[in-house]
Amino acid sequence: MPRYALLVEYDGGPFSGWQRQAGLPSVQGAIEAALAKLEPRAHTIAAAGRTDAGVHARGQVAHCDMEKDWDPFRLSEALNYHLKPAPVAIRACAVTAQDWHARFSAMERRYLFRILSRRAPLTLEAGQVWRVSHDLDVEAMHEAAQRLVGQHDFTTFRSTMCQAKSPIKTLDRLDIRAISTPAGTEIQFDVRARSFLHNQVRSFVGTLERVGAGAWTADDVSAALEARQRAACGPVCPPEGLYLMGVGYPDNPFAAGQ
Amino acid sequence: MPRYALLVEYDGGPFSGWQRQAGLPSVQGAIEAALAKLEPRAHTIAAAGRTDAGVHARGQVAHCDMEKDWDPFRLSEALNYHLKPAPVAIRACAVTAQDWHARFSAMERRYLFRILSRRAPLTLEAGQVWRVSHDLDVEAMHEAAQRLVGQHDFTTFRSTMCQAKSPIKTLDRLDIRAISTPAGTEIQFDVRARSFLHNQVRSFVGTLERVGAGAWTADDVSAALEARQRAACGPVCPPEGLYLMGVGYPDNPFAAGQ
Repeated sequence: MPRYALLVEYDGGPFSGWQRQAGLPSVQGAIEAALAKLEPRAHTIAAAGRTDAGVHARGQVAHCDMEKDWDPFRLSEALNYHLKPAPVAIRACAVTAQDWHARFSAMERRYLFRILSRRAPLTLEAGQVWRVSHDLDVEAMHEAAQRLVGQHDFTTFRSTMCQAKSPIKTLDRLDIRAISTPAGTEIQFDVRARSFLHNQVRSFVGTLERVGAGAWTADDVSAALEARQRAACGPVCPPEGLYLMGVGYPDNPFAAGQ
Repeated sequence: MPRYALLVEYDGGPFSGWQRQAGLPSVQGAIEAALAKLEPRAHTIAAAGRTDAGVHARGQVAHCDMEKDWDPFRLSEALNYHLKPAPVAIRACAVTAQDWHARFSAMERRYLFRILSRRAPLTLEAGQVWRVSHDLDVEAMHEAAQRLVGQHDFTTFRSTMCQAKSPIKTLDRLDIRAISTPAGTEIQFDVRARSFLHNQVRSFVGTLERVGAGAWTADDVSAALEARQRAACGPVCPPEGLYLMGVGYPDNPFAAGQ
């Protein structure tokens, strides 16, 4: 059975998350249903990041095993045809080695979080950013964020539901910058690590927003990290500003095309 | 009755356009209904650009007359409260002179049109760009667009429904550029004029897309302009990539702050 890597984009708004759940709409379920239109049987696909309800993806990576030898471009076109009208799109498709695994071969996950700092309610960005109606000190946020970079026990910043064996992870990057857009000041978090704990990015963003608002200092962030207790975390921010932007592998499976 | 200028942002998707129409959802109607919650009576507001169904605004400008002296910030907050959940937001509000008019005082309208050039269906940008699935020669489009800049009889590029007295307008700018985005190559049209004919921007974009696709040359665009016949126009593009970005006045009514 040939294995295919899929580069997947989706609007997480209408889904209960990536993972298939009985009776609930999921991105995994939508893609598996489209696969079943091409090869009628039960399909189970794996993905690099099991995004939560409301979280979006620009560059999720999944893999599927097919019985037929599909031309990768034709496979992506056929999946996009059957995915309609769900807001899920296959941006690229490539044949991989039999032992390549979208989740276990991944060496890096890259997330973007978008805050829109403005007083007015959202219109065009509704469901795609977290609106914060007060001003934020982005320099203070970025400086405090650097306290989190590196290898740490991130117990404070993981959901109590997290199933990872160890709370120790290495955060490679947490850069925060403000850009001026027609919709207002957008604050972008560029967050990169080999892997993340459950709710880790949203726990970082919610805590660092408190720094931007002036309620927390960088030292408070360090103290929260060192507490190694979930109760020490700031508020977890809403999911709609979070995007899985890309996944890194030893060799980019999509390098040959698209 | 004090007069107020309103800076308005909206997602045009759910509306039949700016203009109030019996039995149909309109942006004008939504704002007038919100005004009636504040001062119960019939309200009639005027706007700089009467955008069509599906067309968005980042910087539409309208004005309203109130009986009470409202603090401008409180007026915008009260309107935003009553506008929910419609995707319409008042970004700023300011008192103006009694004879100031959102439409007749305007000296410039600025539009943006967004094309997303990619094969995959849209997810996060659905309803906010025109997707074109073939490659476009953006340099050729920009060059051909310059044939349209200046004062011309734009009969070719106006809807047969257009109610303007004269088809002669001066196009101040039509710049086209490509930018790389996580969603694919976005082609942005920056279009500016004192005023526009009905469907003029969409007629430009649809015609220039043909140039980008290699089906038309810059000389074909010149010939279409010189024909002064609606039939000589290229296809009119869909509305969902069009944004009214801003309106210019002799004095910016919102200069004092939001």
